[in-house]
Amino acid sequence: MIRKAGIIGGGVIGGGWAARFLLNGWNVSVYDPDPEAQRKISEVLANARRSLPSLYDKPLPAEGTLTFCETIAEAVAGAAWIQESVPERLDLKHKIYAQIQEHAPGEAVLGSSTLGFKPSELQQGAIHPQQILVAHPFNPVYLLPLVELVLSAIAPAATAEQASKLLSSIGMKPLLIRKEIDAHIADRFLEAVWREGLWLIKDDIATTEEIDDAIRYGFGLRWAQMGLFETFRIAGGEAGMKHFLGQFGPCLKWPWTKLMDVPELIEKIAGQSDAQSGHMSIRELERLRDDNLVGMMRALKQSGSGAGGTINAHESSLLVPEAAELPVTVTRQVPQSWTDYNGHMNEAYYLQASSQATDCFMELIGADAAYIASGSSYFTAETHICHLAEVNAGEQISITTQVLAGRGKKMQLFHRMFGPDGGLVATCETLQLHMDLKTRATSLPSGKVAAKLNTYVKAHANMLPAEGAGRYVGQRI
Amino acid sequence: MIRKAGIIGGGVIGGGWAARFLLNGWNVSVYDPDPEAQRKISEVLANARRSLPSLYDKPLPAEGTLTFCETIAEAVAGAAWIQESVPERLDLKHKIYAQIQEHAPGEAVLGSSTLGFKPSELQQGAIHPQQILVAHPFNPVYLLPLVELVLSAIAPAATAEQASKLLSSIGMKPLLIRKEIDAHIADRFLEAVWREGLWLIKDDIATTEEIDDAIRYGFGLRWAQMGLFETFRIAGGEAGMKHFLGQFGPCLKWPWTKLMDVPELIEKIAGQSDAQSGHMSIRELERLRDDNLVGMMRALKQSGSGAGGTINAHESSLLVPEAAELPVTVTRQVPQSWTDYNGHMNEAYYLQASSQATDCFMELIGADAAYIASGSSYFTAETHICHLAEVNAGEQISITTQVLAGRGKKMQLFHRMFGPDGGLVATCETLQLHMDLKTRATSLPSGKVAAKLNTYVKAHANMLPAEGAGRYVGQRI
Repeated sequence: MIRKAGIIGGGVIGGGWAARFLLNGWNVSVYDPDPEAQRKISEVLANARRSLPSLYDKPLPAEGTLTFCETIAEAVAGAAWIQESVPERLDLKHKIYAQIQEHAPGEAVLGSSTLGFKPSELQQGAIHPQQILVAHPFNPVYLLPLVELVLSAIAPAATAEQASKLLSSIGMKPLLIRKEIDAHIADRFLEAVWREGLWLIKDDIATTEEIDDAIRYGFGLRWAQMGLFETFRIAGGEAGMKHFLGQFGPCLKWPWTKLMDVPELIEKIAGQSDAQSGHMSIRELERLRDDNLVGMMRALKQSGSGAGGTINAHESSLLVPEAAELPVTVTRQVPQSWTDYNGHMNEAYYLQASSQATDCFMELIGADAAYIASGSSYFTAETHICHLAEVNAGEQISITTQVLAGRGKKMQLFHRMFGPDGGLVATCETLQLHMDLKTRATSLPSGKVAAKLNTYVKAHANMLPAEGAGRYVGQRI
Repeated sequence: MIRKAGIIGGGVIGGGWAARFLLNGWNVSVYDPDPEAQRKISEVLANARRSLPSLYDKPLPAEGTLTFCETIAEAVAGAAWIQESVPERLDLKHKIYAQIQEHAPGEAVLGSSTLGFKPSELQQGAIHPQQILVAHPFNPVYLLPLVELVLSAIAPAATAEQASKLLSSIGMKPLLIRKEIDAHIADRFLEAVWREGLWLIKDDIATTEEIDDAIRYGFGLRWAQMGLFETFRIAGGEAGMKHFLGQFGPCLKWPWTKLMDVPELIEKIAGQSDAQSGHMSIRELERLRDDNLVGMMRALKQSGSGAGGTINAHESSLLVPEAAELPVTVTRQVPQSWTDYNGHMNEAYYLQASSQATDCFMELIGADAAYIASGSSYFTAETHICHLAEVNAGEQISITTQVLAGRGKKMQLFHRMFGPDGGLVATCETLQLHMDLKTRATSLPSGKVAAKLNTYVKAHANMLPAEGAGRYVGQRI
């Protein structure tokens, strides 16, 4: 049975909730008196449809139905989850809860997106106070998994589990907070950094951009995968968390806090850190951190944001080794993220590396970035790969490129991939068609590109025939 | 000419510097009296060799030579860059600078990895004070690009540019800090969060693990690509940064700071934010943010860390649609990160999706995760792809799988990939060999898998012949 979510307040946060429920197969009813609400939510939804399903290698459930309601009563009737995301005014929230609870099913959860109020404050004067809890998400709600779940002391024991299970089922990571506290946990950190940032700007130490750079080129990348304490555990090295706290704790030299003088606190933190990460050695944690960093920074290369931009700039300054008899079109290391459950480079990355070889050969004949920007390119029409040997993460591979044919719109290339010991690990034969990028139809290359291609055709014509070329799949040798 | 770096102090930080210089083609001389230094640096270097070259799609320069020196004099002779990473004691640093400057070339830069001291403090009593600057990196130094560059007022104007250029040439992102300040910039943020974290642990609000989770499942992912202010600019929505500051500034409700009452500061921040991000609309920033988040979270799926683990768990709970006549082995959306400079899905991802189809078919015949864990799997021996039409980011694709042959060690599959309008966009023929994962040699599948495969062989035997199968590259139709 399709479940229903009632969304009260349809701004950026309410819209994000609506999108997450909808794309996970729930029906969603929205109440928001703002005449712009419908347009705003449809824009959030467009972003969510573009990005959320791309996280997964399987399809999400069929989308639910989105309904805009004239009344709170209509929006919450029959709902299993009601999410309130109205402005941060306690009196307004109390007024709305009264209307919600008059019409909502008794078994529905009523979550508030509040970033500041405690559940006991939200519950004041409510007819069913135990129904109300804090479910504080992070923008964009449709992508970021974290939701801080805060219950007051009067909540029935089963509520936390029921709410957690439901939020997990729409792909979120509910973090149950042990005690009520102003601003829960994450926003206390945001507040601390925000305050420090304001002072730095006020005192002309840094601009907004320099502050962002100080975060995203450095510790931001560490925090995105491990957070604060696991990262610092690694910094303690072989001697562990207690050593780190004793010797390198950031507070050591600063007069701002004397908390670290309390030996019991050091014991407590070291114990919690052991419980959290003690199942892995420091060496294993380092490798996990490095693999995550490489994977995330490679992902940022695509947009050129932050560290991805630094890598792209550095990479463009790197010189490719001199061409041998056949041009060497790829020399590179195999990232950990290219491996699969068989413990070796996944088949798709044989083609990824070959695709890079084709790119490099295109540059050699002048079909480079400027040529593509001017409206022409080559598209791949057909590919044949012989996977001859396994390749492992960290190993060096190189590719040479031989031109089998190159006339008119067609260019047929044969890539040979070599492993770290120089042995042949794969061949890739590829048929490229020259394209007009505006009409998306085949076209002739420029005279200059055709001439450059022809010099390779002539130079490679008398070379050894390419073993593996012209094969069909499964053909006997 | 190969340049030389002198590394004084070879712990985790000094070792990280040594690795970054070495892997970028510099010769490196290390001085560290610790008898364990050589072992420790070789371990850092092993991590760096494993990860740093994997960031790039081109090879790094040939590695330089690593030398361990008995004296500071030997380590710094002829060096273009000298990096000091000894313990954070000012008297110790002063003593070491005296020895370095006695033997170092006058034109060498002397950078300190200090996280706390200001350059003017480091320069006290030095014979060449203008040679000394702060170059504060972040662990792991070989991967994270950020280095905070802090110069004192006496530094010659050209020094900042010279140092920045050199650090950029080894792949780093130098951030020139405008004014000296204790702990520079980033560590002031780390300190602020650390202090808040200690109180939360002391008051039993959260454990180290819960704090890490509050960071890495939420704002940590935002900060890794955009930092604090650009993220908040987006939160202001269409009304922009000034609206955000006026309405949603985290400080609004908190008594902890009254800084935001200063209207000039609001103007200053809004102006700096416009200069930083004003060239993009909020909508464009949202999409950039979302593409980066999807790319990074997909990277984390590989290790299952943080958000990657949440996605894997959710994905495993998703049901694949019912099998049609031919089993539907893939239904998914094309992520932005799968596209290339031609504006469409890159050729390698045709094979990536087909590889997922093969995985799914393996599960259908019982060659699943448990089977692989027990020591058997299928490896791809040969692949042939016909790329028939373009596919764009955000579009839905699906794949059906037909068994062409399946006997003994061999299994030949034919995947048909369909686009959003149901049209055929690619075919992929693949020859799989059954393998013993211990010996890495071919072997027979289990009786159960062979029997299951045979039911598909029989069911598919009378189906339409697969157009495109049995082709070689460039074959006429």
